[in-house]
Amino acid sequence: MTYYAFASDNAAGASGPVLAALVEANAGEAAAYGEDALSQQLDAAFSAYFRRTVRVFVAPTGTAANALALAALVPPYGDILCHGQAHVLTTECGAPEFLAGGARLTPLPGGADRIAPAVLAAALAARPANRHRRPARALTLTQATEAGTLYTPEELAEIAGIARTHGLRLHMDGARFGNALAALGCAPAALSWQAGIDILSLGTTKNGTLNAEAVVVFDPALAEDVAYRHKQAGMLTSKMRFVAAQLLAYLRDDHWLANAAHANAAAARLARALGATPGCRLLHPVQTNQVFAEIASTVQARLERHGIRLRRWGAGADTFRLVCSFATTAAQLDGFAAALQQEAGAAAGAD
Amino acid sequence: MTYYAFASDNAAGASGPVLAALVEANAGEAAAYGEDALSQQLDAAFSAYFRRTVRVFVAPTGTAANALALAALVPPYGDILCHGQAHVLTTECGAPEFLAGGARLTPLPGGADRIAPAVLAAALAARPANRHRRPARALTLTQATEAGTLYTPEELAEIAGIARTHGLRLHMDGARFGNALAALGCAPAALSWQAGIDILSLGTTKNGTLNAEAVVVFDPALAEDVAYRHKQAGMLTSKMRFVAAQLLAYLRDDHWLANAAHANAAAARLARALGATPGCRLLHPVQTNQVFAEIASTVQARLERHGIRLRRWGAGADTFRLVCSFATTAAQLDGFAAALQQEAGAAAGAD
Amino acid sequence: MTYYAFASDNAAGASGPVLAALVEANAGEAAAYGEDALSQQLDAAFSAYFRRTVRVFVAPTGTAANALALAALVPPYGDILCHGQAHVLTTECGAPEFLAGGARLTPLPGGADRIAPAVLAAALAARPANRHRRPARALTLTQATEAGTLYTPEELAEIAGIARTHGLRLHMDGARFGNALAALGCAPAALSWQAGIDILSLGTTKNGTLNAEAVVVFDPALAEDVAYRHKQAGMLTSKMRFVAAQLLAYLRDDHWLANAAHANAAAARLARALGATPGCRLLHPVQTNQVFAEIASTVQARLERHGIRLRRWGAGADTFRLVCSFATTAAQLDGFAAALQQEAGAAAGAD
Amino acid sequence: MTYYAFASDNAAGASGPVLAALVEANAGEAAAYGEDALSQQLDAAFSAYFRRTVRVFVAPTGTAANALALAALVPPYGDILCHGQAHVLTTECGAPEFLAGGARLTPLPGGADRIAPAVLAAALAARPANRHRRPARALTLTQATEAGTLYTPEELAEIAGIARTHGLRLHMDGARFGNALAALGCAPAALSWQAGIDILSLGTTKNGTLNAEAVVVFDPALAEDVAYRHKQAGMLTSKMRFVAAQLLAYLRDDHWLANAAHANAAAARLARALGATPGCRLLHPVQTNQVFAEIASTVQARLERHGIRLRRWGAGADTFRLVCSFATTAAQLDGFAAALQQEAGAAAGAD
Repeated sequence: MTYYAFASDNAAGASGPVLAALVEANAGEAAAYGEDALSQQLDAAFSAYFRRTVRVFVAPTGTAANALALAALVPPYGDILCHGQAHVLTTECGAPEFLAGGARLTPLPGGADRIAPAVLAAALAARPANRHRRPARALTLTQATEAGTLYTPEELAEIAGIARTHGLRLHMDGARFGNALAALGCAPAALSWQAGIDILSLGTTKNGTLNAEAVVVFDPALAEDVAYRHKQAGMLTSKMRFVAAQLLAYLRDDHWLANAAHANAAAARLARALGATPGCRLLHPVQTNQVFAEIASTVQARLERHGIRLRRWGAGADTFRLVCSFATTAAQLDGFAAALQQEAGAAAGAD
Repeated sequence: MTYYAFASDNAAGASGPVLAALVEANAGEAAAYGEDALSQQLDAAFSAYFRRTVRVFVAPTGTAANALALAALVPPYGDILCHGQAHVLTTECGAPEFLAGGARLTPLPGGADRIAPAVLAAALAARPANRHRRPARALTLTQATEAGTLYTPEELAEIAGIARTHGLRLHMDGARFGNALAALGCAPAALSWQAGIDILSLGTTKNGTLNAEAVVVFDPALAEDVAYRHKQAGMLTSKMRFVAAQLLAYLRDDHWLANAAHANAAAARLARALGATPGCRLLHPVQTNQVFAEIASTVQARLERHGIRLRRWGAGADTFRLVCSFATTAAQLDGFAAALQQEAGAAAGAD
Repeated sequence: MTYYAFASDNAAGASGPVLAALVEANAGEAAAYGEDALSQQLDAAFSAYFRRTVRVFVAPTGTAANALALAALVPPYGDILCHGQAHVLTTECGAPEFLAGGARLTPLPGGADRIAPAVLAAALAARPANRHRRPARALTLTQATEAGTLYTPEELAEIAGIARTHGLRLHMDGARFGNALAALGCAPAALSWQAGIDILSLGTTKNGTLNAEAVVVFDPALAEDVAYRHKQAGMLTSKMRFVAAQLLAYLRDDHWLANAAHANAAAARLARALGATPGCRLLHPVQTNQVFAEIASTVQARLERHGIRLRRWGAGADTFRLVCSFATTAAQLDGFAAALQQEAGAAAGAD
Repeated sequence: MTYYAFASDNAAGASGPVLAALVEANAGEAAAYGEDALSQQLDAAFSAYFRRTVRVFVAPTGTAANALALAALVPPYGDILCHGQAHVLTTECGAPEFLAGGARLTPLPGGADRIAPAVLAAALAARPANRHRRPARALTLTQATEAGTLYTPEELAEIAGIARTHGLRLHMDGARFGNALAALGCAPAALSWQAGIDILSLGTTKNGTLNAEAVVVFDPALAEDVAYRHKQAGMLTSKMRFVAAQLLAYLRDDHWLANAAHANAAAARLARALGATPGCRLLHPVQTNQVFAEIASTVQARLERHGIRLRRWGAGADTFRLVCSFATTAAQLDGFAAALQQEAGAAAGAD
């Protein structure tokens, strides 16, 4: 178990208000399976958040949330279009295909892990329509993307329009939805249902909660089906109040936004430090809380003398991922920047 | 949302040591997806508990745990034998059938929600064996049963022997496994692998944790398969340390046993109170923490004057379930007993 | 491989016109996968037969037809109500559960393998509606039933009305649909869509074709979904013209009706012979082409001297099934009746 | 319904001996569901064909055969590696993913629709092994390939060795297995189990039968599982003797080989004609009964004057597929060659 610096936004625990809410919820007894007072507030709280009546279902993991949502959107013979680097495709062991009973994920290309509208349009136009071929039935977008980049509301609307024209439903993997909102300065509605999303996997775990994900259903016609699928997939927790308490604390007083903005700002500092260092190169625009960088092997080796090991990522020999969270400290950032500056200079001098 | 007295062992939150362990785990950073120091202790801790090398997988709900286990034990064409009142059959919205891709649960009859060895043997002997019929491939037993009753280790071994003879794998739904152990005074091994169980759903939520169930795999040949199914079903939590911390605290210093013994003793007190009350009748032997009773309508009505509403259960017009937990207080028990005594006398006088 | 007298209506091959049509279709080349001229006539031919626009999909077996239909009618969490002796439940190795991705078949009781309207109504009324329980989503009826009995159009309409009230879709397993029509003197419409059926598995194999079953979709909103499921389940045959040729010959000139009436009449003769024989007892009214009878062991033994072995059926020690088909000959019937008369008398004399 | 010349080897019906066997099987009665005398010969006949004890299951389509085989080889979380042009991936509407309950097909690149050993080895070596990623569990190869090309026994053995090293099971889609054998002059064993294949989809429909495919199981440990999956997927035909009769006639007296050799020779003649024509270019080596060619638009237009329309295939604007079968006549070949020669000359003169 090597420990990496800036390894993941899953590395932190719960933020203070979230943990306090969980502990507070422990007092006394409450009804199980969502019949308690806290869980009963979820729909209303998220409806206020999204300025639209929504139905919310808790999920223990982002994988569970994504698979549940996609299973509700496509039949077993349906194709789900996604980016080739989408988490649902690469890192969920086939959960969407499983929960959807045989659905298929079909990857699309695109720089910075984004799907361009023209790429989607061309892919859909090129699909033959006959019973031998699977019909495309859904599109899933990750926001922020796996590369930490973003779709603007306008881009989302354009993509959604193309998808709708071809009869596709829309899912958003919002594992870092808060980071996207913070970066774009958008209202939650603008990046979700106003942009055409049918179901959103709203991740909160990476932004300050403990394994508390929310599946947000915008299309009321889907809600009953999702409710049964949710139970049948084993996601209806008995002591749901402890999940609900976290989610409510997450939404309260824009706590989610403070956390996300902190993480994004921290990543921006990492990016500036790396961008100013000879031998280092940013691989994608740093728009949210993830930094992808190429770091010369000489620099890496010197960083390790400072106890800083980074996590390799992707196909490149010297490419790394650094992720910040609500819990990333100024000391961590300063330490990294100082080590980088010192060693980059030394590496340059050693050449 | 009516609140019921003794409604469920899901009504309590976390016990003190469990919540403390969760809060303690919140300090600092840790690797995700089970690569952290706490999660890495799980296999060893449960292996010590069971005195055998086991593999453990965390699950957010008992439904998820059961379905995962059964999916690993039967093919899509396999039949799973269970009691007609088994939770997997009645209350999980078909999760086992879904995760097992089309498996079927076939109910067996039996008093006190127990399957008698002779009933199992007869059912298996009567099944035709040809390709038109689903072959029986697994047996699932609930311990303690849905009626709060028990299988002794000897009964389990006899049942398991019959099942093995017919090629069945064995699963135990141990949502109240701790209560069963406390009641029988058995070692965990004696009620599980020594009795022939292949996979155990070890519930801890009802006995003091927050949505922390464990799937314990005794047959090492099954472990890899379960690991992948676990991830594919969306159960591999990112911040797993918070589940692990609870489970470790649960096992430590026989905390589970103290909790379970407390709950069982509380139920015994309820049973004594009800048994001594005219117009009340226990429906099953009270062996663990659940009490099923028929209560005359005159008595019920008078109890409500004390603010005591009970939860109807089962097909009978006047049948109720009362469940105790680690958190049931002497005041609750005393209050109930006093109200019962007072009102039963009054009801008798009113006749 | 013991050969039984009157073993099954699957024992005969193709009737003359059907085989001739198949052989005729072999001339020349034709497009594959249903694009040929014969296959392209199927929808129109069945639409004329049913006096309504329908979509038809060929299936290699009744099991495949039933499973495809039910998979299109229920989600994975849906319950399918059926009679406890329904073929889909007892003899299809779980095909409906599999193709429907985890659906469940829930048996209802009823004499003569029929579901009474009141039984259905009571069963539906008794089902709790919450997320822990599977919702009932479809009802499947077998016509003629597994006991060879019938539902009248009026009974079907009453049952369908109850089912609709509870939001259920309706499927009919018409493995012996022709026999039912012949017996009731009904138009095909009267026993299907006019009575509320959404999808019919129209069996023709037992009535004169070679493995040519038809899935008839009455609700046009379901047709596209069935079309994709049909292909995904591997049922879209390449040389479909050979299936289509048989089905078209089956419908032409009421050939199906002649075959079915012949089989029914033959069964009626068997029933009369058995009914007149001491030691024999009919178990169900003989309304179509199946006869279920109890035959005293002394009579059975004597029949075997004539080379007549019968096929045991059901739970009784001395209960048998005898089935007639379009190919049952007068000689077979006469021989059986004569042997029965002779030996029953002898058995009586031997007593 | 445009009719194309050389459109498919599915365009012909049954060959003479096959149809005669089917008609002959129609005499008299026989047990259903494979208990008849003809069906009971299948295992022995195919065991003799493969010089090894095998179990055989009939399937109505190649799609059904492939999906059944793959479902028996991989769990729902397993990956199936295949060529990017494999029929299972492109043209079966996701049947393998569906029958395998959520499996995934992962495409590999390769010229002439062949997977090179080095490509397979590199792909397997590059796969990360952790619970987030689907493990590769099977490889499926098409023989002859979708491009009409071949794997030699030595190539198959090399590929199988690599696959085995990584724990993969092997499936072969032998929709045109007879054509491959005829072209390579191999024994059936050499291209199947001796080369490491676990299950073979042995297609006979394209080579002279009517919708009669065989799933050949070489690994006896898989047979029982396949038997149940076969029934559960609806493939156990009632009047199986009519499928068996065809398959037995197909094997008898090397009828399959005569048919395949005829088709291959016919394709070779097409290839020679096209290869000698200016403006035409073969896209793949013509090794079996399929010809893929680029044909200049001027030539195409002139061919249409002779009533010869060809079937476009693939991504190219002027690329076509021509397929020969056992039924392709000398007149068809001569007519095409003559038209081609005449019009190519005219087209050249017109330039």
